[in-house]
Amino acid sequence: MLKKLVLTGAAGRLGSYLREPLSNMCEELVSTDITDDIGTLYPNERFAQVDIAVYDQIAPLLEGADMVLHFGAIVDERPFEELLGPNFVGSYNIWEAAHQHGLKRVVYASSIHAVGMHKKADFIGIDAPHKPDTFYGLAKCFSEDLGSMYWDKRGLESVCLRILSCAQVNNPRALGSWLSYDDLIQLVTRAIDTPSVGFSIVYGVSNNDRAPVDNAKASFLGYRPKDNAEQFAEAILADAAPADLTDPGEMCQGGPFASVELGKSATKSMNIVNDKKKT
Amino acid sequence: MLKKLVLTGAAGRLGSYLREPLSNMCEELVSTDITDDIGTLYPNERFAQVDIAVYDQIAPLLEGADMVLHFGAIVDERPFEELLGPNFVGSYNIWEAAHQHGLKRVVYASSIHAVGMHKKADFIGIDAPHKPDTFYGLAKCFSEDLGSMYWDKRGLESVCLRILSCAQVNNPRALGSWLSYDDLIQLVTRAIDTPSVGFSIVYGVSNNDRAPVDNAKASFLGYRPKDNAEQFAEAILADAAPADLTDPGEMCQGGPFASVELGKSATKSMNIVNDKKKT
Amino acid sequence: MLKKLVLTGAAGRLGSYLREPLSNMCEELVSTDITDDIGTLYPNERFAQVDIAVYDQIAPLLEGADMVLHFGAIVDERPFEELLGPNFVGSYNIWEAAHQHGLKRVVYASSIHAVGMHKKADFIGIDAPHKPDTFYGLAKCFSEDLGSMYWDKRGLESVCLRILSCAQVNNPRALGSWLSYDDLIQLVTRAIDTPSVGFSIVYGVSNNDRAPVDNAKASFLGYRPKDNAEQFAEAILADAAPADLTDPGEMCQGGPFASVELGKSATKSMNIVNDKKKT
Amino acid sequence: MLKKLVLTGAAGRLGSYLREPLSNMCEELVSTDITDDIGTLYPNERFAQVDIAVYDQIAPLLEGADMVLHFGAIVDERPFEELLGPNFVGSYNIWEAAHQHGLKRVVYASSIHAVGMHKKADFIGIDAPHKPDTFYGLAKCFSEDLGSMYWDKRGLESVCLRILSCAQVNNPRALGSWLSYDDLIQLVTRAIDTPSVGFSIVYGVSNNDRAPVDNAKASFLGYRPKDNAEQFAEAILADAAPADLTDPGEMCQGGPFASVELGKSATKSMNIVNDKKKT
Amino acid sequence: MLKKLVLTGAAGRLGSYLREPLSNMCEELVSTDITDDIGTLYPNERFAQVDIAVYDQIAPLLEGADMVLHFGAIVDERPFEELLGPNFVGSYNIWEAAHQHGLKRVVYASSIHAVGMHKKADFIGIDAPHKPDTFYGLAKCFSEDLGSMYWDKRGLESVCLRILSCAQVNNPRALGSWLSYDDLIQLVTRAIDTPSVGFSIVYGVSNNDRAPVDNAKASFLGYRPKDNAEQFAEAILADAAPADLTDPGEMCQGGPFASVELGKSATKSMNIVNDKKKT
Amino acid sequence: MLKKLVLTGAAGRLGSYLREPLSNMCEELVSTDITDDIGTLYPNERFAQVDIAVYDQIAPLLEGADMVLHFGAIVDERPFEELLGPNFVGSYNIWEAAHQHGLKRVVYASSIHAVGMHKKADFIGIDAPHKPDTFYGLAKCFSEDLGSMYWDKRGLESVCLRILSCAQVNNPRALGSWLSYDDLIQLVTRAIDTPSVGFSIVYGVSNNDRAPVDNAKASFLGYRPKDNAEQFAEAILADAAPADLTDPGEMCQGGPFASVELGKSATKSMNIVNDKKKT
Repeated sequence: MLKKLVLTGAAGRLGSYLREPLSNMCEELVSTDITDDIGTLYPNERFAQVDIAVYDQIAPLLEGADMVLHFGAIVDERPFEELLGPNFVGSYNIWEAAHQHGLKRVVYASSIHAVGMHKKADFIGIDAPHKPDTFYGLAKCFSEDLGSMYWDKRGLESVCLRILSCAQVNNPRALGSWLSYDDLIQLVTRAIDTPSVGFSIVYGVSNNDRAPVDNAKASFLGYRPKDNAEQFAEAILADAAPADLTDPGEMCQGGPFASVELGKSATKSMNIVNDKKKT
Repeated sequence: MLKKLVLTGAAGRLGSYLREPLSNMCEELVSTDITDDIGTLYPNERFAQVDIAVYDQIAPLLEGADMVLHFGAIVDERPFEELLGPNFVGSYNIWEAAHQHGLKRVVYASSIHAVGMHKKADFIGIDAPHKPDTFYGLAKCFSEDLGSMYWDKRGLESVCLRILSCAQVNNPRALGSWLSYDDLIQLVTRAIDTPSVGFSIVYGVSNNDRAPVDNAKASFLGYRPKDNAEQFAEAILADAAPADLTDPGEMCQGGPFASVELGKSATKSMNIVNDKKKT
Repeated sequence: MLKKLVLTGAAGRLGSYLREPLSNMCEELVSTDITDDIGTLYPNERFAQVDIAVYDQIAPLLEGADMVLHFGAIVDERPFEELLGPNFVGSYNIWEAAHQHGLKRVVYASSIHAVGMHKKADFIGIDAPHKPDTFYGLAKCFSEDLGSMYWDKRGLESVCLRILSCAQVNNPRALGSWLSYDDLIQLVTRAIDTPSVGFSIVYGVSNNDRAPVDNAKASFLGYRPKDNAEQFAEAILADAAPADLTDPGEMCQGGPFASVELGKSATKSMNIVNDKKKT
Repeated sequence: MLKKLVLTGAAGRLGSYLREPLSNMCEELVSTDITDDIGTLYPNERFAQVDIAVYDQIAPLLEGADMVLHFGAIVDERPFEELLGPNFVGSYNIWEAAHQHGLKRVVYASSIHAVGMHKKADFIGIDAPHKPDTFYGLAKCFSEDLGSMYWDKRGLESVCLRILSCAQVNNPRALGSWLSYDDLIQLVTRAIDTPSVGFSIVYGVSNNDRAPVDNAKASFLGYRPKDNAEQFAEAILADAAPADLTDPGEMCQGGPFASVELGKSATKSMNIVNDKKKT
Repeated sequence: MLKKLVLTGAAGRLGSYLREPLSNMCEELVSTDITDDIGTLYPNERFAQVDIAVYDQIAPLLEGADMVLHFGAIVDERPFEELLGPNFVGSYNIWEAAHQHGLKRVVYASSIHAVGMHKKADFIGIDAPHKPDTFYGLAKCFSEDLGSMYWDKRGLESVCLRILSCAQVNNPRALGSWLSYDDLIQLVTRAIDTPSVGFSIVYGVSNNDRAPVDNAKASFLGYRPKDNAEQFAEAILADAAPADLTDPGEMCQGGPFASVELGKSATKSMNIVNDKKKT
Repeated sequence: MLKKLVLTGAAGRLGSYLREPLSNMCEELVSTDITDDIGTLYPNERFAQVDIAVYDQIAPLLEGADMVLHFGAIVDERPFEELLGPNFVGSYNIWEAAHQHGLKRVVYASSIHAVGMHKKADFIGIDAPHKPDTFYGLAKCFSEDLGSMYWDKRGLESVCLRILSCAQVNNPRALGSWLSYDDLIQLVTRAIDTPSVGFSIVYGVSNNDRAPVDNAKASFLGYRPKDNAEQFAEAILADAAPADLTDPGEMCQGGPFASVELGKSATKSMNIVNDKKKT
């Protein structure tokens, strides 16, 4: 059992599902967020309200930790200036602090939006070149490259989880891109328990019949998702509007992020259900 | 639900299995064939006897249709002159009529014989270059290239189903190449219900242990076959004659078509059971 | 020295430059065209006016020949029905006649338009999948596949010369796509003198700095072009209109053929100088 | 049913599990080993004590056989001189004798150690270049190349089973590399019953979540393993020492063989349980 | 002739060689730098001292320009915080201002350090995934991804010149990595005069015998370098210290940047001759 | 300048051309051969008659050497038993002795016959899998794999020169495969003077128009051949017999070795001119 884990973005939707399983994998889970409340704590969990964009706030929390699970960021498209602190500098702070405190590994919530302008029909693998769809995706590219460099230059491991879409399935794209909460937990568990990972990338997607990405080269991580969005296909497709074949959001991995104007919110119109896990 | 679908080759063996499921996916199914009888019609089905090689016969039927399922062709090797009308010009007529009437998509019964001279051991993907084994296969190459062009130039979508072998399993090759009727129906359903396909190719093969082709790059279509010819393996292999390693029909994807003389019937000696579905 | 060569399309622009060098490589050159006059004949050349779309006209001429140089076709985009005879059936006639008369090889004037919808920036090699831009290009795909099959099934060799553009350089695209007449002659010479070619494809392009295609895999043919369109760059670029980045004709290999409407002449607006070689 | 099979290395651990199923696939199974006792024989089995490094001892046994299953070798790292006879010359003797006696096929127990210096994270396929980790692995490279040549030059088929690790799972690496005895038997069965194999390579590994190699290109062989080492993961990982990221044995396919000094025993410290099947 | 070009980093060594040729390609060249003096101006050149890290300083200068040549940055490894303004935000400012003012293209001085941790022996092409060697290289990755996104989302073109090393050849690595000033000028000229580039990457390296990178896929740009560092090989190699095979700086593309500690100057020990062009 | 070089096979044809340039690159050249006479020695050259198949004969000579140039072997196809000593064990002795005496590098005369069964039309690169055409080629595979392992496990560098054909051009195959003596010398010089090579493979072939192999991935070695066999093409092709397209010797890289029976001399019928350099 690990001694200490640190989770950033603990108050977010994904964070809310990860806190309990993470708390069971270590003696102490330090959950952090920029908000001031994450609800009731699990037995060996403690909470710290910090701004990851400020090195001196986040760095000390990593002392003595084995790994950090970095899920904290603004989770939408915004003007570059707004993302610069939390999504760019915040990532730098995490990797640098992890290095300074001798952590073994960073597990990072990356995103399909780092490669969102690739076509769905290209079935990209984990070594496809970056092709971001938004400033949000650009921050994911930046953080992955940062992780690659800290491994090559300093021997700090990283697993970048390129999550496709982790939310209730309510549109045709999600039939391919869905990551169930159970599969998210398996994915994070594998990212932690695999003995050596170097610098690795793996797509966070369930075992969907229509999954448009290829995890083959991450095989050694042992992530084998169990859920399948095909259970929702009939209902979703019956209601779906005709596809607009000239819309990058239809043809590209990034979905709505691929068509949104740079700097404008992409999630506003996406009807994401906030089914955060209650604690 | 779709308004109208058109099926060519409706009196053929594959057509006979597709008519019922197709009739359930649309308000009106127009089944066509060059023969004059396809048996009892399903509730919302109507039949038209047409020669697809004659534009003015087939084209008007596509008016108002959403998609056309193009399964009509001479299904065997023949001299080029005999295939020119139905298998070449017929395909042109379908795509051109689909364009003229503003259809969204052509679903085409292509065939492994478009790439039949590739070795089985090469596990070709959907982007392997054409390598036809017969004039029959050449017509499939021609039609696929036609579909590619109508998408690139006119925005008309196509899914080309490269069927390996869809018939009762009664020889060793079929242990790898078999496509069950149920999986055929799933394949055609996916080709219809996937919101956007652009120009796509997918191998029509069941979930056989010995499947010699790679559908990975068509993953977004969500075709996940359920049947497996391995159930027949013990019986088939016990009776099989020794393999002739110098016979292209043994080593190549196309099987008997890979060894048949150009222009001569390849199916005559294949003992294909005519288990056409009775209506 | 070869005994007999047959050249189709001898009255065309490219044919006019090939007749003399070809006549020097064999005891007898049979030049054919659908027109009735190709000017003064070279010493060991004879002319036959034939329609390659009619098997019985062209086939007998191949008797006793070593190879046929197949350059005859309608050289422009046209409705499919107009190309069907000369560009499709004509090719079949050539390969079939070559087989019937035991020729060693077909040297075929294929074209970039067989792969014209690929992006210039993709630097496609000779094994890129077909992606025709016009019915004209589709006929090139058809003929290449035919050649592949006659090699695999009947041992008849083919070299397909995918010519990019062989005409005076008078536009920016030609800075990359130009094939000089001297390099054309070298290319055809290599296609003839290489002892074994199986089924081969090679791009017909000069040694242009801006050449957008990759002949590496045809290296064994020894085609090493000498001319370079860069000599025309300064003048051409000074006069060029700004590029329209949304025009497939600008971004794709096929140039004007990539943007022309299917079935409409693509060369009408191209100002191709008819500098046919006088004899 | 086959007439005769020959098994070398019959007294080894893997051999002990193969003798029974092999004896059921043929009229006569000739089991051989350099030791003098393999326990009770199965009904149609006979035993011959031979040294495979001596051509005249092993060769006569292959007379009249359909195939030879070549599992005999020193199964550990040793100085080159010690392996030269059994692992190098022994292989030559098997292939040469198989050729001399007209056998159809050699099924060879190759090993991951032929490619053991590749990184686990590279998910190598069956066509990865050789990259041996030991003299032991070098002998596997030698034998595979021998098999490739006997197919290309003499039409003798081979299947090389690159076994990852076939032993009780008692360390983290084995979570990815385990080959269960049942899957070993399936693998050997497929290597025998597939009608044509040419020269083929296939990884011998179970259906482990964490399998680090890619068998896709051997698909036509129909090997579909059923067991999964993930059942042991929790217990194994709980006890595991921290990974040493600078140890090739941790990062490379070959595991302990990748870090052992050349010529020194690699298995001594591996705690391989000798659960040889009793007969 | 172009109306207006903007050059950032005009006072730098590379900038000093570009000012004259650039001034000959346009009616007005606006040269900018953070320093206050770039020497005598060329006839149609004007100078503006600006900090590119401040949007309002640099943006207005781009008004009415056709293209911007972005060479301004701190040209060495430094702590992330020091590079954040000029090398990261500065790039954002350039692309955003170029978009706001409707420029056609950004020509960007990227660097081998974006992929500096790749092995020299891997002969990486322009589509190799990012693998930065320093924060300096990370800023190049960031800027390239930015350029990719502005093309995909906003139709703003970019050419990223991944310069290997542009300085006097005085060490063995430079025999492969050298970019002569003349070839730099050719490279920049091609980046400007090519009619359409979309988003392109090209290595900035001379025609060195030992060049370790592959520009094939940028062929359409027509960059064909003329100089060759092999002229210096004998002298350089005679004096060279033995290679340290365990030093990433010896084996990797990035050279000294690959071995330097993150955040520490890499150029201090490199003896780069400041042969800035005098004006 | 190097202190000491060792050359095996010094009495061979290739050795005879290498002795002088090698003697100029080091203070002492030790030339060895199994024969007892290599003619007049160069100033700083000494000769030792040794059998490389005997470790104790060859090993002591390597003491104090920087590198060994391993050209000694039986240079023809022979029965496996005859090649086992000189071509297999001899290679082991060289690498092991090089390791024991702390040499920096082995430069090995490998051969196209390690990959001789690949098709010429496949334009194989340096990473093509082994595909030997003879026992002679098998020994080259063995030695290359040995070199790979000594680098991976012991940090001993190797350059494997896969020579295609180094002899007077007197047949069509040599138009592609020729390596001139001058280019051989350049190749060996690069293999010595490149500061770091790890384990490298490079094809030994001149700058022939018809070269059928791809050295791109060995670019960093800086081997840029100057000679071109095309100068002999006209004369050679005029005299050549028609190609037999069913002969592997015509279609495969290995030429006559690809068609010779295993174990039988391949060079007997090749009319190789023994133009050994006189000393």
